[in-house]
Amino acid sequence: MKKTLSILLLTALVLLPALGLAQKTAYPEMKQLQGPQKPRLGFVIHGGAGVIPRGSLTTQQEAEFRAKLEEAVVTGYRALQSGRSSLDAVETAIRILEDSPLFNAGKGAVFTHDGKNELDSSVMDGRTLAAGAVAGLRHVKNPITLARAVMEKSEHVMMVGEGAEKFAKDQNIELVDEKYFFTQHRWDALQKILKEETERQKKEGPGAGLTATNLLPQNKFGTVGAVALDKDGNLAAGTSTGGMTNKRYGRVGDAPIIGAGTYANNATCAVSATGWGEYFIRLGIARDISSLMEYRALPIQQAVDLVIKTKLQNLGGDGGVIAVDRFGNIGISFNSEGMFRAYINSEGKPVVQIYQD
Amino acid sequence: MKKTLSILLLTALVLLPALGLAQKTAYPEMKQLQGPQKPRLGFVIHGGAGVIPRGSLTTQQEAEFRAKLEEAVVTGYRALQSGRSSLDAVETAIRILEDSPLFNAGKGAVFTHDGKNELDSSVMDGRTLAAGAVAGLRHVKNPITLARAVMEKSEHVMMVGEGAEKFAKDQNIELVDEKYFFTQHRWDALQKILKEETERQKKEGPGAGLTATNLLPQNKFGTVGAVALDKDGNLAAGTSTGGMTNKRYGRVGDAPIIGAGTYANNATCAVSATGWGEYFIRLGIARDISSLMEYRALPIQQAVDLVIKTKLQNLGGDGGVIAVDRFGNIGISFNSEGMFRAYINSEGKPVVQIYQD
Repeated sequence: MKKTLSILLLTALVLLPALGLAQKTAYPEMKQLQGPQKPRLGFVIHGGAGVIPRGSLTTQQEAEFRAKLEEAVVTGYRALQSGRSSLDAVETAIRILEDSPLFNAGKGAVFTHDGKNELDSSVMDGRTLAAGAVAGLRHVKNPITLARAVMEKSEHVMMVGEGAEKFAKDQNIELVDEKYFFTQHRWDALQKILKEETERQKKEGPGAGLTATNLLPQNKFGTVGAVALDKDGNLAAGTSTGGMTNKRYGRVGDAPIIGAGTYANNATCAVSATGWGEYFIRLGIARDISSLMEYRALPIQQAVDLVIKTKLQNLGGDGGVIAVDRFGNIGISFNSEGMFRAYINSEGKPVVQIYQD
Repeated sequence: MKKTLSILLLTALVLLPALGLAQKTAYPEMKQLQGPQKPRLGFVIHGGAGVIPRGSLTTQQEAEFRAKLEEAVVTGYRALQSGRSSLDAVETAIRILEDSPLFNAGKGAVFTHDGKNELDSSVMDGRTLAAGAVAGLRHVKNPITLARAVMEKSEHVMMVGEGAEKFAKDQNIELVDEKYFFTQHRWDALQKILKEETERQKKEGPGAGLTATNLLPQNKFGTVGAVALDKDGNLAAGTSTGGMTNKRYGRVGDAPIIGAGTYANNATCAVSATGWGEYFIRLGIARDISSLMEYRALPIQQAVDLVIKTKLQNLGGDGGVIAVDRFGNIGISFNSEGMFRAYINSEGKPVVQIYQD
């Protein structure tokens, strides 16, 4: 009797989350059952979470963001359609976002406390679990391409600082003068923060800097990323960031941390994250989503919602993730006011979204 | 009928791994059932895996290693007995190992290709999931102490390079001249490797450097770490390393990567890893052990064995982990020839081991 009871109890423990009766999905068209089915190509990108209270963008600005996100998602998806790999699609889309001044990655990177730009990126191949990550770059035009070179052309996974740039040089990866990363709006943002910081220190003493906690979300967040499933069933994920405005001390966020900002495993899913990096590292967000699918058989939308809307929320962090599973099902979740994002829907059409809509 | 069948199937899927009938444990005295029981203090340390083919140490050398490991494990355990926190015990023991020239961390750090020392470390608090990590240090005497300061005195989780050292200075953490890290045996090891590399390049062309793959294990590995459970049921883990002899390009291994080399969560376990860092990052070793306990209810020894002896082994990597769960049960696993390690057994006595014994 006791035995039967424990079997029933255990069964319930597995079945309940798998059924996910109480869970709503924000993406009803993606609500497909997990299991053997004909996989389709899958492609999702993001351009940062939390940066965009509704009404903060002019019509013109919103149109620019939407156009660039659509260009990136369509170009990456065409790469998949033409038979190229998920890694190619991820790199292609992220390069487009890195080359735009709109996003906090590559060209549009924010400034550190010292008025420099420090860029981080990572990429992962779900087929082989190979990965590449770079941090603290100052002269690499496309950090995602260097991350991929670290993965494919070196025996290492992670390289930082000047050493990473030396590797970039040896690999003939495009280096640019620091001036390339100058954009007026990012510079103005730093000056504004430095001024606020000085005022705060006048009032509250020398220790009272502007920290991650009291920075406005638009200065804390902003990262780009992509996840893809290709025709061969291979998953890939990539993330690229310019970090946090006014950051100090060689701070590194989650974007170049495999398992935090980026993870891909053909057995489960590919994930790219954006948000308050410290929380994403502590929770191992990207890897946890994969583990929930692998060990608890959660469908992808439930896995991303559990990690973002419960675990991240409870710990006090914010941000979001995009994910795609091995069948092409998409998962998107964020607990911030908005997240720049775009995906290809089941009819092969691009969908671009910014707010909670 | 179909429904009954799937319930049975699902039940079997949960029960089989949980029962773990086929699994042997190398530590029979630790084989305790999981579940509510009176927790005891738990303390394990390691001084690197893979570095020690049996017979490669003289009796004198072996005695030195054993004495230092015993000193570290006993000192850390006494801290726990006197009521101090798991974080204190972890930091105390790791500082002892960092201050010894025997281990590849702190004082005994190996040399990079350029004849420098670059030190990495991380620490995690299982109670709050707070974490601190530092990489690419050249002047910090005790990297574990800086990692802890990043966790406790900053809003960040990870800092690298000169920025991290600036934070160290601001926090009055002991900085030393680069010369402090000079040890003749590490210098000789680099010279030997550089000579082999030159010869290889003469034979095979300029690209044929000595990479992680063709380095001897004693030049690839060697890291120190500790995991602890204190009287309040709080878990902590820490790891510290001097990296890989002859490393280039600002390479960072798993030691400062939260989720790879270090993880702690009061709900599951505390883990510190040592081995071929690239594999440990790709597999997210430390975090995966925690997830296997959380989502699959694996006992700790089964969790560490599955990750090291199956997953790491299958991917082609080597190394090992130490772990302690929230009841004080210990898990130790490695697939290398040996691992310097020490723990406190259920009678409160220190046990020091090197080989597969």
